[in-house]
Amino acid sequence: MPPPPLLLQIQFANAEDKQEFQKYPTKVGRRSLSRSISQSSTDSYSSAASYSDSSDDETSPRDKAQANSKGSSDFCVKNVKQAEFGRREIEIAEQDMSALISLRKRAQAEKPLAGAKIVGCTHITAQTAVLIETLVALGAQCRWTACNIYSTQNEVAAALAETGVPVFAWKGESEDDFWWCIDRCVNKEGWQANMILDDGGDLTHWVYKKYPSVFKKAQGIVEESVTGVHRLYQLSKAGKLCVPAMNVNDSVTKQKFDNLYCCRESILDGLKRTTDVMFGGKQVVVCGYGEVGKGCCSALKAMGAIVCITEIDPICALQGCMDGFRVVKLNEVIRQMDIVITCTGNKNVVTRDQLDRIKNGCIVCNMGHSNTEIDVASLRSPELTWERVRSQVDHVIWPDGKRVILLAEGRLLNLSCSTVPTFVLSITATTQALALIELFNAPEGRYKQDVYLLPKKMGKTWYSLIKYFEVIFPVATAMTLMRLSVFE
Amino acid sequence: MPPPPLLLQIQFANAEDKQEFQKYPTKVGRRSLSRSISQSSTDSYSSAASYSDSSDDETSPRDKAQANSKGSSDFCVKNVKQAEFGRREIEIAEQDMSALISLRKRAQAEKPLAGAKIVGCTHITAQTAVLIETLVALGAQCRWTACNIYSTQNEVAAALAETGVPVFAWKGESEDDFWWCIDRCVNKEGWQANMILDDGGDLTHWVYKKYPSVFKKAQGIVEESVTGVHRLYQLSKAGKLCVPAMNVNDSVTKQKFDNLYCCRESILDGLKRTTDVMFGGKQVVVCGYGEVGKGCCSALKAMGAIVCITEIDPICALQGCMDGFRVVKLNEVIRQMDIVITCTGNKNVVTRDQLDRIKNGCIVCNMGHSNTEIDVASLRSPELTWERVRSQVDHVIWPDGKRVILLAEGRLLNLSCSTVPTFVLSITATTQALALIELFNAPEGRYKQDVYLLPKKMGKTWYSLIKYFEVIFPVATAMTLMRLSVFE
Amino acid sequence: MPPPPLLLQIQFANAEDKQEFQKYPTKVGRRSLSRSISQSSTDSYSSAASYSDSSDDETSPRDKAQANSKGSSDFCVKNVKQAEFGRREIEIAEQDMSALISLRKRAQAEKPLAGAKIVGCTHITAQTAVLIETLVALGAQCRWTACNIYSTQNEVAAALAETGVPVFAWKGESEDDFWWCIDRCVNKEGWQANMILDDGGDLTHWVYKKYPSVFKKAQGIVEESVTGVHRLYQLSKAGKLCVPAMNVNDSVTKQKFDNLYCCRESILDGLKRTTDVMFGGKQVVVCGYGEVGKGCCSALKAMGAIVCITEIDPICALQGCMDGFRVVKLNEVIRQMDIVITCTGNKNVVTRDQLDRIKNGCIVCNMGHSNTEIDVASLRSPELTWERVRSQVDHVIWPDGKRVILLAEGRLLNLSCSTVPTFVLSITATTQALALIELFNAPEGRYKQDVYLLPKKMGKTWYSLIKYFEVIFPVATAMTLMRLSVFE
Amino acid sequence: MPPPPLLLQIQFANAEDKQEFQKYPTKVGRRSLSRSISQSSTDSYSSAASYSDSSDDETSPRDKAQANSKGSSDFCVKNVKQAEFGRREIEIAEQDMSALISLRKRAQAEKPLAGAKIVGCTHITAQTAVLIETLVALGAQCRWTACNIYSTQNEVAAALAETGVPVFAWKGESEDDFWWCIDRCVNKEGWQANMILDDGGDLTHWVYKKYPSVFKKAQGIVEESVTGVHRLYQLSKAGKLCVPAMNVNDSVTKQKFDNLYCCRESILDGLKRTTDVMFGGKQVVVCGYGEVGKGCCSALKAMGAIVCITEIDPICALQGCMDGFRVVKLNEVIRQMDIVITCTGNKNVVTRDQLDRIKNGCIVCNMGHSNTEIDVASLRSPELTWERVRSQVDHVIWPDGKRVILLAEGRLLNLSCSTVPTFVLSITATTQALALIELFNAPEGRYKQDVYLLPKKMGKTWYSLIKYFEVIFPVATAMTLMRLSVFE
Repeated sequence: MPPPPLLLQIQFANAEDKQEFQKYPTKVGRRSLSRSISQSSTDSYSSAASYSDSSDDETSPRDKAQANSKGSSDFCVKNVKQAEFGRREIEIAEQDMSALISLRKRAQAEKPLAGAKIVGCTHITAQTAVLIETLVALGAQCRWTACNIYSTQNEVAAALAETGVPVFAWKGESEDDFWWCIDRCVNKEGWQANMILDDGGDLTHWVYKKYPSVFKKAQGIVEESVTGVHRLYQLSKAGKLCVPAMNVNDSVTKQKFDNLYCCRESILDGLKRTTDVMFGGKQVVVCGYGEVGKGCCSALKAMGAIVCITEIDPICALQGCMDGFRVVKLNEVIRQMDIVITCTGNKNVVTRDQLDRIKNGCIVCNMGHSNTEIDVASLRSPELTWERVRSQVDHVIWPDGKRVILLAEGRLLNLSCSTVPTFVLSITATTQALALIELFNAPEGRYKQDVYLLPKKMGKTWYSLIKYFEVIFPVATAMTLMRLSVFE
Repeated sequence: MPPPPLLLQIQFANAEDKQEFQKYPTKVGRRSLSRSISQSSTDSYSSAASYSDSSDDETSPRDKAQANSKGSSDFCVKNVKQAEFGRREIEIAEQDMSALISLRKRAQAEKPLAGAKIVGCTHITAQTAVLIETLVALGAQCRWTACNIYSTQNEVAAALAETGVPVFAWKGESEDDFWWCIDRCVNKEGWQANMILDDGGDLTHWVYKKYPSVFKKAQGIVEESVTGVHRLYQLSKAGKLCVPAMNVNDSVTKQKFDNLYCCRESILDGLKRTTDVMFGGKQVVVCGYGEVGKGCCSALKAMGAIVCITEIDPICALQGCMDGFRVVKLNEVIRQMDIVITCTGNKNVVTRDQLDRIKNGCIVCNMGHSNTEIDVASLRSPELTWERVRSQVDHVIWPDGKRVILLAEGRLLNLSCSTVPTFVLSITATTQALALIELFNAPEGRYKQDVYLLPKKMGKTWYSLIKYFEVIFPVATAMTLMRLSVFE
Repeated sequence: MPPPPLLLQIQFANAEDKQEFQKYPTKVGRRSLSRSISQSSTDSYSSAASYSDSSDDETSPRDKAQANSKGSSDFCVKNVKQAEFGRREIEIAEQDMSALISLRKRAQAEKPLAGAKIVGCTHITAQTAVLIETLVALGAQCRWTACNIYSTQNEVAAALAETGVPVFAWKGESEDDFWWCIDRCVNKEGWQANMILDDGGDLTHWVYKKYPSVFKKAQGIVEESVTGVHRLYQLSKAGKLCVPAMNVNDSVTKQKFDNLYCCRESILDGLKRTTDVMFGGKQVVVCGYGEVGKGCCSALKAMGAIVCITEIDPICALQGCMDGFRVVKLNEVIRQMDIVITCTGNKNVVTRDQLDRIKNGCIVCNMGHSNTEIDVASLRSPELTWERVRSQVDHVIWPDGKRVILLAEGRLLNLSCSTVPTFVLSITATTQALALIELFNAPEGRYKQDVYLLPKKMGKTWYSLIKYFEVIFPVATAMTLMRLSVFE
Repeated sequence: MPPPPLLLQIQFANAEDKQEFQKYPTKVGRRSLSRSISQSSTDSYSSAASYSDSSDDETSPRDKAQANSKGSSDFCVKNVKQAEFGRREIEIAEQDMSALISLRKRAQAEKPLAGAKIVGCTHITAQTAVLIETLVALGAQCRWTACNIYSTQNEVAAALAETGVPVFAWKGESEDDFWWCIDRCVNKEGWQANMILDDGGDLTHWVYKKYPSVFKKAQGIVEESVTGVHRLYQLSKAGKLCVPAMNVNDSVTKQKFDNLYCCRESILDGLKRTTDVMFGGKQVVVCGYGEVGKGCCSALKAMGAIVCITEIDPICALQGCMDGFRVVKLNEVIRQMDIVITCTGNKNVVTRDQLDRIKNGCIVCNMGHSNTEIDVASLRSPELTWERVRSQVDHVIWPDGKRVILLAEGRLLNLSCSTVPTFVLSITATTQALALIELFNAPEGRYKQDVYLLPKKMGKTWYSLIKYFEVIFPVATAMTLMRLSVFE
């Protein structure tokens, strides 16, 4: 029998704690980024995943009695019988996650995580499953829950449950379900977590508030999200972080991959999937020449687009100029552009006034860090007609018949209309695994009660950053990095 | 009441004619290319188009009595009431077909096709509709049918019928329907076609065989497909082509766009949509360095892939070498590749033996002109397991667990898994329109009973090839070509 | 004792012949292109060559008695004692001419030119010497003279003379010397040429006019220049070409290398050597987007310049547009450009009016086929001051102080201010050698009295065009082409 | 009468000072980098500069009595009569230094350096002259000397002297001359410097040691060299830096330009000027993928070379991999390479053993930060023959005849065989000028006795870093940056 709903039972130690807990933004806002990521990463398997959506089973997983084939009931998923489908998804994901697979093979004899009891809270996808199963192969005991109420791939959760990982997650959880799952993950009689792997900080916060004794005895926290890292720094600043934490979000590889390398590909992918536009000969303006803008510009230029940029930071403008892009003012070129892309991180980069002057058929989209770069709100006015022409694509029609093609309603194109390659997720997952190994094996005193970046040299030489790249790159450079003399 | 089935009534003039008629390859084979094109071009609007598939109406259009809002019944489509949906599709297509729109605007006063009676046989898609409506705007009377039994967008056909174009086509015609539609298109009492616009040669063949008097009096034929052009050259060689014909297929723009510019984009698009693979750092071998290979290599290199090529033609190998690609033998590199792409036009470029040596997780696909470049047949053997992981994606699994990711079962990736941009279709359609104008307006004797390429200077100076490019490029170069002095 | 001056003795068979002879443009004009080529190719060794210019020896070589170390006097060069220096130059050239070296090694046992008696008339440079010595190694007897009165590298001529090749050439010949040398080359008692290798057509013309019996019995002519090929076609048209000729000038490789690949490099080289300009961020307009323009644009874009083009041919404009260059009118952009490059092949592409509007410090140069693309004549007017700031660089100064930096006085930048890489010369030389082999070994009747391009399959399979590329590319693709299965 | 030699008169305050003074590396070693820079920058004007070398005047400038046309003798140059030639060189340099010219125009009314008394010690070249004359235009009094005994352009020094700048420098100073000039620059009765602009730290050191009272009262030091900045940090660490100093060397622009943007162009230029090699199709290995390596790889790839890299830093290897370069071990590829380039900053990157295995005709050169990356010393052994084929180019010949083409004896190719574009020098010079303005105008207390980088926002808003880029980029982006809204 599933445990009773738990959220209502939460007893905050005092009013101050409760207030702090509640001052976080609402889940909807707070996790909008995370959600988009998982959304797109599941989309990429949408055709395969469709079988699971036909379920007419409306019963809440919390109300179901399920057991896996070994008889264990220590999990809560939509339907453990879907395990086989999930297993196939995991196998597909393994194809492009050879870094983790390689780590698994090399370290499973040594079992560097033997004794580690990890509670994890991440998107539950095929890629995460590869991470979890790697941690298990390295000796860890894991209990897992979802960091997002929409992003769980139910079949994958089933596959994990079937192999014996206690996982508590399903697609379409309520907020109450969300916290109930987290608690079930942590609150296991006779078992006490000593490591936390988090994405967004909810699990960390829950343990910190509800299970302070667990929190204090933990050997480390690994966090990958902007939000979660921000919370950790706040805790640290307030002197309340009594356990070393590893900031995976700001590792060089994650930043380079999430921005430059990923966007270089996803700008093309996102535009093609939504509009089938031909790039060659198109006039494009990219607003902002940071890492994301650099990626977009380089890709579009290579496809034969005629690209110019806007940029207010002089160093970035300099780079754009020396890379061969005209640096312009948006107002000067807006009338002639075929595609307008924002990636500045600022608000109202494209204003209603500019949208009024844009030409018929122009595509407008956003690759930046917020959905306010294009003043979409200003387009929701009575004189303009919106027409949804396909998923993520709206025609906004002016009274004179001019159509502007707005993608993803101004949200992040790369997350809404493209996918995050498994290879990129693999790199982050490998970094997470190495961070766990490092924190768990570090000699006492090496890491204080603070937030760290993954060091170049790790406690166990074997897992040094150099090795970590060797691990990451067997696919890409089978003939190369692995044989560099430094690795011999 | 719809007319009775017609195919059975066809009376060949003599046995020889019948034999010639029948020696053509079967439709399935003959039109496989055409079908793929239309398939993909409709796919690109698949989400929008889905409303029309829910039709539970099983009645054959031939058995339905329909009339458009003006009372005309001179058409046969699935459901004329879907006209409004089709109109929206046409309007979307117009966004990226400004060449045709521009031609329409500039020539509709002059009406260079006044008096032209055109029978057309092409895919019935939103893009074709823009062409047809342009021809009508220039003064032509048109009757239209589909060149493929699967590719018709029913809503678009409805929209055309609603505006008064006699169109005979629906998705899912039988072979009998196919010929019936063609005949209904030609065989209109009191109306005799004087121009033929064809894609594949079926309409031309039908007129030639069934209505020789119409054929002899026609002022011109415009043909865009490889197959159709081949037939015309055969007719010409046999001295049976009694009407001038324009070969649109081999026009420079069509060739450049269909191969170099299109493939440069569709190789990336096709790979992303099927596998979400990250290109950066991947080892890729492209077999064949013709126009298609050049497009593939240039795109993948720009995305950070490490690309090498195989090539047996010394001139192409030279170009590859001077463009900075390693020229290799496939056997030497096959083991290390992450992606293998064929575009040679030859058979068995990738053999079973090589597939046996390929590494786990390698993606194998074809961008060439046939589905036999990869020896897919050899993979259909008992010791290998095929697993369909999503549409167009199969994992072929070796006994040792190795998986090779085969796309589109070795058929053309760009047609099966990507889309043909509207802009490209627009260029071909504009060429077709200009070819019709040229043939219809040419002074007598200018064109003999032969097959021609569109001339640089056309009969009416206004429609010269230079103008035609001006017409084609307003979108891409609004500020540029239109103002070149040559156009002033 | 050297033979007496010969030019005055030429007796034309009749007045018509004389007229025809004389109707050719004057040497200065006719060979201006050839001269530039040789000029630059010797420039590239200018530092090394300087030792030979210090000669205070004013005696004409025709008046000197010289013998090589074997006692032969059958040559006429500046100073045979410089042979050692010339040998070094030849050895340096051999480094990047492995195609010829490879041909030499592979065919010297077979001696496919045994019996060939070749008279040659080309620039006498280290690169030509490698060709001549290859022909000798393949069995030919050679006698050689210079096609240009300025381009001979005296030391190289000496080195050839020293090894026994009868060579008649020196730097700074008079026109009389020029014809005298040609005649000495042909007119050798007891020896009659059966093959002609020519660059410019002067030798061919001389033999045709003066030694018609030799001309008629020749087995073939190989010609590499535009002018010479033009003459051959004229002869052929007039029915006077009684010997098969091979047009090397229009071979694919020569065209691609001379234009696209060579110019891609020499535009950068020429600009750097003359102005040291930084390319990154510079605004550049390239007039003309043919092969030369494509090479220039691609190189400058890659260096970070912001490049736009002008083009009146619609097909080329299309390509420029799809390659991502703005297509503009020169008048619209002339004020903002930092560098203006012409490569259209037309006259007055940059007019005085435009030069008046150009900005201070702008660099203006020509990569096209004539020195009239920039209206340099219009700059030679009293109100403008010319200042020679270094070799090939003039500042033209307007009354208001504006300076325009004019390179090579509007002549070809690539020939005047850059060098032709030995590798490119090697490709042409190898083609010449193969053409000689083909003509000399072809079965009777295979080649008529006409002008031919080098065939893909040659008479002796061994020397097929495919082999020929294998021979050309050992340097570039040591690991690749040589092992392509087609060569096995 | 010129003042007497001064060096011998230097009295160190105490033995410790003397020791510290002397512990610096000898001038030859210490200034080898500086020397190369100036060498190349003068080389670029070599043809123009040649007139000054013909001087047969052997008299030391110190022994000459000279006066400019205004009667002033407060300078010491080779020959003040060469002023006119020098003026032309300065005018040429101004063409590509519009940043300084723009600064001059905008600030000369305001005169932000009025009251500044600057002693400067830099290379005396046309480019520096533009800087000096800009400082004067902004209100400063300047006295100048050379930082290098070889690099002075005598005509430029003359031109400066003629306009009234007290300059003490000539080409070919002795070490004694060097210090004498510095002293004459500082030691002017009735005039006390309050600002120091230094390149290498010699002037700073001299003032610090010899004129401590001047040193203490100075308002700021601006230093651009690695060596000089290193000295300043040492002084600061030792608590002996009693004046704020500005580190120009590490400014973003200087670093980006000196490395990435400059090397991207100079690798091509250096190779072409020395070897005329064709890049297309060549196999190249670049050792090291830092900023310099990135520049080299990007340029060579764009020219059609087939480039692979070696790299031991995992982050850089990652970038190389994602940029599409094969990451290899040098030993694996050394036999096949046509060009080997080092830019790692390490020693013996290319060993004798590897040089033994390199193929005939391979070019070997260094773009890194020392002349020890290639083990050139190991090549100076009896069994190998060295042949100098032109300036900066040696053939090293193995006993079997194999030739390796070694450039600049392993020294920096970009400095030895290429030129530093005036535009790059202009950027550094503008930074120096702004640094002087900032330090001179900063409110008291803003800068402590420490070493600073140029701040983004400067004391006078007008001169903020953003403005500074506006000033730097008028040439490159006439239409762009200057009109960015941020500048309005």
